[in-house]
Amino acid sequence: MKKRRKARYSSENYIQGILQGDRVLLSQSITLIESRLENDQILAGEILEAILPHTGNSLRVGITGVPGAGKSTFIEALGKWIIDENKKLAVLAVDPSSSRTKGSIMGDKTRMPELSQDLRAYIRPSPTQSSLGGVARRTREAMLLCEAAGYEVIFVETVGVGQSETLVRGMVDFFLLLMLAGAGDELQGIKKGIMEMADAVVINKADGDNLHRAQVARAEYESALHLFPSSESGWQTPVLTCSAQEKSGMAEIWEVILRYRREMEKTGFFQKKRQEQQINWMFDAIRQNLELDFFKHPKVQAALPEWEEQVRGGKVPPLSAANSLLNMYKQS
Amino acid sequence: MKKRRKARYSSENYIQGILQGDRVLLSQSITLIESRLENDQILAGEILEAILPHTGNSLRVGITGVPGAGKSTFIEALGKWIIDENKKLAVLAVDPSSSRTKGSIMGDKTRMPELSQDLRAYIRPSPTQSSLGGVARRTREAMLLCEAAGYEVIFVETVGVGQSETLVRGMVDFFLLLMLAGAGDELQGIKKGIMEMADAVVINKADGDNLHRAQVARAEYESALHLFPSSESGWQTPVLTCSAQEKSGMAEIWEVILRYRREMEKTGFFQKKRQEQQINWMFDAIRQNLELDFFKHPKVQAALPEWEEQVRGGKVPPLSAANSLLNMYKQS
Repeated sequence: MKKRRKARYSSENYIQGILQGDRVLLSQSITLIESRLENDQILAGEILEAILPHTGNSLRVGITGVPGAGKSTFIEALGKWIIDENKKLAVLAVDPSSSRTKGSIMGDKTRMPELSQDLRAYIRPSPTQSSLGGVARRTREAMLLCEAAGYEVIFVETVGVGQSETLVRGMVDFFLLLMLAGAGDELQGIKKGIMEMADAVVINKADGDNLHRAQVARAEYESALHLFPSSESGWQTPVLTCSAQEKSGMAEIWEVILRYRREMEKTGFFQKKRQEQQINWMFDAIRQNLELDFFKHPKVQAALPEWEEQVRGGKVPPLSAANSLLNMYKQS
Repeated sequence: MKKRRKARYSSENYIQGILQGDRVLLSQSITLIESRLENDQILAGEILEAILPHTGNSLRVGITGVPGAGKSTFIEALGKWIIDENKKLAVLAVDPSSSRTKGSIMGDKTRMPELSQDLRAYIRPSPTQSSLGGVARRTREAMLLCEAAGYEVIFVETVGVGQSETLVRGMVDFFLLLMLAGAGDELQGIKKGIMEMADAVVINKADGDNLHRAQVARAEYESALHLFPSSESGWQTPVLTCSAQEKSGMAEIWEVILRYRREMEKTGFFQKKRQEQQINWMFDAIRQNLELDFFKHPKVQAALPEWEEQVRGGKVPPLSAANSLLNMYKQS
C-alpha cells in the first residue's frame, strides 16, 4: 500500500531543484501552487518565499489573439526563434474556462510539437480554476517559479476570449495581440478595448494569396491606432505582419519586444510598471482572501442564490440584499 | 442654542416629499446618502427601501468627454432639448477627485446657467468622496431618488478623466462619448478603450470654420469603429456631429438614444443589462463593505504603508505582505 503514497520532498528539495533548473521539480512545484490542499499550500508558500530573490529577471510577454489567428503556430515560431537565440523560454497558458480533465496537457503538447520536445522550452497548461482571480494568482506564482528555474523569456498566453486579456496584461511587461487580415474584423470576436491594450499588433498569415490583404490590414490598423492617444509610456504601438507557418517576420517581432524593453528601461517606465504590478498583486491577494472567506461561508452559500434571484427580479434592492448577507456573515 | 440644530424630518417626510417631486427634500435625501454619520445612513436606508418600487423608470444616460470638448455646454443644449420634449431631467456628476469645499455646487450652477434655472431640470454636483467605489454607490442611490421624484431622463456625467468612465458605464443604459475634431486626437487625453465603450460618439463644435473638420473626423471615427466587432447587443455605435453652442444636432442625438432603447427593449438586451447591473451592484456592495472593514482597521492602517514600501522595493513578496496583513486583521 505504500506505493500509493506519492514520494514527498521537503521544500528544500524543491527549492534546490528549481534553482538548478530541474523540470520535473519545477512542474511539481507548480502543481503544489495549484493545489487546494492546505499542506500543499504551506509547502508552496515556503518554496515561493525562498526562490523570490531569484525572480524578476525574465522578459514577460503576454500573447493574445482571436480564435483562428494561429496562436499556437505563432508561439511555436516565435518561441523557436527565441530559443535559437539561446534564451530559455517558458510558455504558460491562462484559460479561466479550462478543465484539466478535458486533456489540456495533451492539448498543449500536440499543438506545439516542436517546442514541447525542446529542452530549452518549458510548456505549462492552464491551471484548472474556475475563478479568474484564482487563475491570476496561480499564473503569477508559476511565472516566478519559472524565473527561478532560469527561464529568461516567459510567454503568458490567453486561451479564453474575454476577461483574461486584462488580467494577463496586468502581469506582463509586453502585450502582443495577434490578428488576421480579411477575415472580416467584425467577426474576429475580439473584446472591445483589447486592441488598445496591445504593445504590438501582429497580423499573422501574411503569406501566399493572403500577403497583400495582410499588408492592407496593417496600414488600416496603423491608422486606426493613430486615432488613439499614445499611452503613458510614450510607446507608439507598431503593427507588424508575419507568417507563423513560414516562420517569417519573427526577427522583427522579437526586435520590437527588445526595443520596447530598451526604451522603457531607459525612461524608467519598465521598472515603474513592474513595481505597480507588485503592489496591485498585494492588494489583489488581500481582496481575494476577504472575498473567499465571505463566499465560502456555509450560511452565505446557502442564502446567496435566493437573494440573487430577488435582486434580479427587482423585488429587493441590491443594497438591502448585500446588507442582509453581510450581517449574516459577521454574526457567525 | 436650539437654532443650531437643523430641523430633522422623519423618513416618512422625506419619502412623501420625494414622491411628490419636492426638490428640497430630494436634495436633502441625497445629502443623507452622502453623509458618513451613522444616523444619516440609517435614515437614508429607510428612504431608499421605501422609494424602491418607484424607481427604474428613467432612461439613464452616461456622458463623458475630453476636457475642452464642451461637455457643460453640450449637457445644457441636449438637456434643454429634452425638457422641451416635456421630460423631466436630472443631471448627476461623477468626479472622484472633486471636493465640495472647492465650490463645485456653484461651479455646476454657473457652468449650466439655463438648466440650473429651469424647474424641469435638477442638477446635483458630485459627492465628495475620495474612493471610486464610494462615488459609485452614492451616485447609484442618488439616481434612484431622482427616479422616485419623477425624473424621466438622468444624465450621469463623468467629470474626472480616468476610471470613472468604466464606473459610469456600469450604471447607465446608454453611454455617450463627446469628442472634438482636429484638436490632435493624441492630445485629447482619452483613456485607451473609452471610445469602444461608447454607444454613440458625438463630435462637438461642428460649426463655423470647424464644420468640415468635424465631418472628416466623423468619417474617420466611423471607419475606426468599424474595425472593431459589434458588441453583444448587436448595436452599431453611430458617430454624429453637433454644435452645442448653436444648439444644432440635438434632435438627431436624442433620436439615437431613443432608438437604442426601442431596439434594445425589443431584443430584451435593455432589461437584461439592467438586471446584470443590479446583481453587480449587490456584489460591489458586498466587496466594498468587506474591504472597508479591512482597510479602516487601525492595525492595518498603521502597518500598510511599511508593507507597501517593502513590496515596492522588492524586499517582500506581495503574497507574504498580504498574508501578514490578513493575519493581523483576523487575529484582532
